[in-house]
Amino acid sequence: MARKSKALILLISYAISFYAISAEQADPLPSWNDTDTKKSIIEFVSNTTMSGSKTFVPIEQRIATFDNDGTLWAEKPIYLQLFFAIDKVKDMSSEHPEWRTEEPYASAIKGDLETLGKQGLEGLMKLVMQTHSGMSAEEFHQEVKDWLKTARHPITNKPYTQMVYQPMLELLDYLRDNQYQIFIVSGGGVEFMRVWAPEVYGIPTQNIIGTTLKAEYKVEGNEITIQRLPEIDFVNDKTVKPISIQNFIGKRPTLAFGNSDGDLQMLEWTTAGTGPRFGGIIHHTDKIREWAYDRKSPVGKLDKAIEVGKSKGWLFVDMEKDWNQVFQQLGN
Amino acid sequence: MARKSKALILLISYAISFYAISAEQADPLPSWNDTDTKKSIIEFVSNTTMSGSKTFVPIEQRIATFDNDGTLWAEKPIYLQLFFAIDKVKDMSSEHPEWRTEEPYASAIKGDLETLGKQGLEGLMKLVMQTHSGMSAEEFHQEVKDWLKTARHPITNKPYTQMVYQPMLELLDYLRDNQYQIFIVSGGGVEFMRVWAPEVYGIPTQNIIGTTLKAEYKVEGNEITIQRLPEIDFVNDKTVKPISIQNFIGKRPTLAFGNSDGDLQMLEWTTAGTGPRFGGIIHHTDKIREWAYDRKSPVGKLDKAIEVGKSKGWLFVDMEKDWNQVFQQLGN
Repeated sequence: MARKSKALILLISYAISFYAISAEQADPLPSWNDTDTKKSIIEFVSNTTMSGSKTFVPIEQRIATFDNDGTLWAEKPIYLQLFFAIDKVKDMSSEHPEWRTEEPYASAIKGDLETLGKQGLEGLMKLVMQTHSGMSAEEFHQEVKDWLKTARHPITNKPYTQMVYQPMLELLDYLRDNQYQIFIVSGGGVEFMRVWAPEVYGIPTQNIIGTTLKAEYKVEGNEITIQRLPEIDFVNDKTVKPISIQNFIGKRPTLAFGNSDGDLQMLEWTTAGTGPRFGGIIHHTDKIREWAYDRKSPVGKLDKAIEVGKSKGWLFVDMEKDWNQVFQQLGN
Repeated sequence: MARKSKALILLISYAISFYAISAEQADPLPSWNDTDTKKSIIEFVSNTTMSGSKTFVPIEQRIATFDNDGTLWAEKPIYLQLFFAIDKVKDMSSEHPEWRTEEPYASAIKGDLETLGKQGLEGLMKLVMQTHSGMSAEEFHQEVKDWLKTARHPITNKPYTQMVYQPMLELLDYLRDNQYQIFIVSGGGVEFMRVWAPEVYGIPTQNIIGTTLKAEYKVEGNEITIQRLPEIDFVNDKTVKPISIQNFIGKRPTLAFGNSDGDLQMLEWTTAGTGPRFGGIIHHTDKIREWAYDRKSPVGKLDKAIEVGKSKGWLFVDMEKDWNQVFQQLGN
């Protein structure tokens, strides 16, 4: 081996060790206050990843699943994906005069978010189906990408992709640094998330599971496309979440985070496994910096999961007390 | 840093470089003869992974999908998974007297593989549904695991997990070494494959896509299970393969390998993408070391894909000429 390469390798080795030592000393979760919540998370991750630990989890079993709406990014005043659907319904409404009196279209066109929010996830799926189908996956991605460039959240006026929680971004990084493989398991539309979530969360498309439309493989001359049909394949919510986890991942998660009753079964399934398991609930308690809601909220209702979660020892993250900042800090 | 750690790191660095240099010089595909076929594969992988190459493919786009039956392991005299189903049908037949005259059960009980082979993939799914459902995923895994321990292929007398192709194992390793992420996209049952494929191929459960049964989330007191129902969710064959690729992976593969008309659309979809794409067909031409079949075979029929593949420039692997050994060599 040439002397030059040797020197280079030695230099790289130094750099690696230096980086490793600094990383170990730095706080992996700087946006989390030093509360018992933060302590529980760090203890769990340490205990499952330290070799020789009684509760060590082998790397291939380190599966972490996260809900998206209300867990990784905001879901108020309504699921953010619906703002895309509303804008598309408005665009399409001239071709659909019947929508002016038919729900959920009428509320969408009027911009009546309160009535819209009460349609329930399945009801809202109608909007999604109408506006998210009739094109190829590539065309749909382009539409969402174009929309994201100019669309702004109606209350914060931020781009939607900046409505993500800084403490959760840190948690994702921390888990990845500890060889956890992260999946999104969301009721949101899978192809809607795949446009921006890989860049924003660092989660690749193949690790994003969401509500899925039926599709058709279409060959017309030289043009081959996968067309999105206006029919739901499955709504990825409630009991469907653990089933999707089985179908897509094929392993029970070691750790799962959610924020609503729609995540109850995912956390129940996760924490019912043998060995160390972790269930976490993001409790929206911060009416100043974000929103405060739980049992009575039509969007992100957290009711039954409070009792179940307490009886099963899930971790409740109190947004107001446990986080020293809420939204993503750009330039960090 | 202690002098001892420095010395250790230097030693590790040496070991890594030595290994890297040896690996570079060694033939990555020793079971492949030095034919144009091998050359095409190596050229494609080099061209897509060498930085600065005009046909460079970024790591996150390096998705390779492989069919399983007839592509990674044998599928003769019938799909190997069916031997499991047959053994289970026999076990269950005392409770189902009607099966003695009803296909496909009657042929299964008689062991009439020829008639069974003619039932087609959808017909054979009946057998699979009956024998693969009515239990949890964990219980099913245990059944398959137990069966694999003693079951032997009726012609070669080998354990089924040794009916895998050594040249393909090398190809999987070679692609992984070049940061390709490998997925199985098979008509076979997803949970059947997940029992053994992670160990045999080094492909984790979350990268295995196959025919899927419907399932039910069931809570009975403290017992929570995902029950497998006797109903097909989707048969992962033909046009469903590209749709599954979109649903599960969310990216078009850069490379795909199959062996039958059931893989036609997967390869068509893969190679219709822009940029460098690779479609490969394993052509079973070796009647001495394996089997020779194509257009007229009821199992693994390769007919239409021959013309389509030739017109589109897919690589046809001639098993007899291109491989210097067929089945896995243990102890390698």
